Amino acid sequence: MVKIAIMGFGVVGSGVWEVLTKNAASIAKRAGDEIGIKYILDIRDFPDHPAKNLIIKDFDKILNDDEVSIVVETIGGLEPAYTYTKKLLEKGKHVVTSNKELVAKHGPELLRIAKEKNINYFFEASVGGGIPIIRPLQNCLAGNQITEIAGILNGTTNYILTQMSKYSLSFEEALKQAQEKGYAERNPSNDVDGHDACRKIAILSSIAYSHYVNYENIYTEGISKVTKEDMEYAEELGCTIKLIAMSKKLDSTTVFARVSPLMILQKNPFANVDDVFNAILVKGDAIGDVMFYGQGAGKLPTASAVVGDIIDIVKHIDKSYVYTWGISGDIKVLNIEETSCRFFVRVKYKDLSKAKDAVSIIFNDCMIVNTHKPIGKNEFAFVTHEMKEREFKEKISQLEKLPAIEKVLSIIRYDENI
Amino acid sequence: MVKIAIMGFGVVGSGVWEVLTKNAASIAKRAGDEIGIKYILDIRDFPDHPAKNLIIKDFDKILNDDEVSIVVETIGGLEPAYTYTKKLLEKGKHVVTSNKELVAKHGPELLRIAKEKNINYFFEASVGGGIPIIRPLQNCLAGNQITEIAGILNGTTNYILTQMSKYSLSFEEALKQAQEKGYAERNPSNDVDGHDACRKIAILSSIAYSHYVNYENIYTEGISKVTKEDMEYAEELGCTIKLIAMSKKLDSTTVFARVSPLMILQKNPFANVDDVFNAILVKGDAIGDVMFYGQGAGKLPTASAVVGDIIDIVKHIDKSYVYTWGISGDIKVLNIEETSCRFFVRVKYKDLSKAKDAVSIIFNDCMIVNTHKPIGKNEFAFVTHEMKEREFKEKISQLEKLPAIEKVLSIIRYDENI
Repeated sequence: MVKIAIMGFGVVGSGVWEVLTKNAASIAKRAGDEIGIKYILDIRDFPDHPAKNLIIKDFDKILNDDEVSIVVETIGGLEPAYTYTKKLLEKGKHVVTSNKELVAKHGPELLRIAKEKNINYFFEASVGGGIPIIRPLQNCLAGNQITEIAGILNGTTNYILTQMSKYSLSFEEALKQAQEKGYAERNPSNDVDGHDACRKIAILSSIAYSHYVNYENIYTEGISKVTKEDMEYAEELGCTIKLIAMSKKLDSTTVFARVSPLMILQKNPFANVDDVFNAILVKGDAIGDVMFYGQGAGKLPTASAVVGDIIDIVKHIDKSYVYTWGISGDIKVLNIEETSCRFFVRVKYKDLSKAKDAVSIIFNDCMIVNTHKPIGKNEFAFVTHEMKEREFKEKISQLEKLPAIEKVLSIIRYDENI
Repeated sequence: MVKIAIMGFGVVGSGVWEVLTKNAASIAKRAGDEIGIKYILDIRDFPDHPAKNLIIKDFDKILNDDEVSIVVETIGGLEPAYTYTKKLLEKGKHVVTSNKELVAKHGPELLRIAKEKNINYFFEASVGGGIPIIRPLQNCLAGNQITEIAGILNGTTNYILTQMSKYSLSFEEALKQAQEKGYAERNPSNDVDGHDACRKIAILSSIAYSHYVNYENIYTEGISKVTKEDMEYAEELGCTIKLIAMSKKLDSTTVFARVSPLMILQKNPFANVDDVFNAILVKGDAIGDVMFYGQGAGKLPTASAVVGDIIDIVKHIDKSYVYTWGISGDIKVLNIEETSCRFFVRVKYKDLSKAKDAVSIIFNDCMIVNTHKPIGKNEFAFVTHEMKEREFKEKISQLEKLPAIEKVLSIIRYDENI
């Protein structure tokens, strides 16, 4: 029997216990050995939980128990997860995690230690919940030059945007619903401001391009400024709005990466990914387009990915089978100012005809949106042709200064080709 | 450098050469070693191909060359692929294949030999072309009890059905187009009669349920009887028609499996999988629904999967890392007569009112299809409630005997829940 420990008995950690317990027989068959949970580390007590006797408070007990060969880290956040993981790896214990903050921040260092110690640091659950994506990227698509990744990587924001689109809710109304359903936290910033999606696209990009993509360099914009009116315009344009995380390999030294709301055509496959579901599109030079779709969060789907990692380790536990993710050196992320895009813009006017004239002159070739029904008051919208972000910013500040314009109401990137 | 051989230099085999040559540098980095092609076995000559000097005619040269540790089998079909593969595995050489006929027929035996010899027999390319599906099923989802698989697994038939649906073509017209585009062979039976999809669902089911599902026991119906009129009715019903291969685990000893045209709702994700694309839906007790989508055939996508398998072997070539698929004993496939379904039926009548009355009496609770425009001549259609196939057959033969009915024009299974 292989003995493991679970650190952090929250949603995911308790899901791991549940899957390992419920499917013990089939898991033992597939892993080639039984898997026994020896400790569960948590600062809380769980007096009514069937696993209450396994709960401990002292991390060193796990660290110093030679019988424990695999540790699940489902604490989340940077500390104490980072310190614990580093110590465990240095001690020669395999670690499996769902912690995207930690992987995005310290992945390369932790992977290096794991390689030196001839053990594995696995994190399939850190992106896309239960959707198999890390291992397929790393293994099945290894013959490809991956050129692009795009995805709906955050279930909370996708739920909010779906509700806004389907039921004409405001952001605030939809957020409240998401919180009531337990899809959003009381402080929802990590999700709605795009940080979670940013870390996930950084992890995927690092694996796909075999170089560390630092999440801190990725331009990240959340969904809190998206309004009901934006959604109405999107519909008039045959579009919808999704929070899309994407990256492209530009050449051997540079990638383009961005997390932002994006207006995409309704016929785009991403447009039909609703509620808390995630989808990830990968483009490779041999494979063409391949897409992965499923539940990107939640107790059991995420636990499914963690347990898949554990089984993979148990299968080869005596064979010094080490799985290196091949992430070397940093790759530069292009400054967002230097990237190009089309933009959807809503403006409030003081003088309609002068405002439209000004828009036509400043953004030549832009498309003024004709709507079937009036949206908002004293406003209109347009979609620019493709231009550098820097150029767009200059044009917008030019526009804002004109007396015919009261204010720019919203700006959303527009992509009909994604 | 790891030396490999390619057997069969057709579409897939030459694609493998192309990917290994074009992406040699990044592949060597990921595999941890260079991969060199030493031999290409084919009965033909390729005097204008850059790899012409590698072509050999004598299989024994590969078998007896100790330097060759991995052999790619892209010959296809049962013989000589089976004899060659068996000899290579017995000799201790890893084999990677895209050959679904061989895996579906002799998979368990070949996997057993590979396990005994401490080597790998990999076949990611046998299902879904380049789409990662075998490895995710086997590894990432190993913590789950997989309960159901459904897929569009054949690109040729999906192309034909897409053309029929989009451009109101007959089956014959669409098949001709598919042949002109190189998507269908001159003798298209293997694809259009469903045999190819049948072998693929058998392979996926064997892995998912950890028991050998014999493809010969799977009820298989092709698309050659689907007509333009069937497609028109489908549209009136808010549906489309796809060739769906599916299986469900009923209990520990029995599965239900079927390959047939299926009328599915247009809002179903499968309905939007068009042209030569494939999609595979997997249901597991922890993961919920997860879907994989991409190019299910073609030179480079399929080669991508083969090369992914090769890299995985090279990574662990000195570590006796053996990957067993854990397929043990057969599992019973339920007789199709004992399974239940709804059915779409078109009948040609002699007496409309008597015919409708008869249908209502024989198939009580059935839904007569009201169409916006007349379809066909002297005909109408209905959709039954769910019933056993055996019961349906009896009712149909009862119906056919009535004087008010001229003939039953078509029968297509209908599923609004897939």
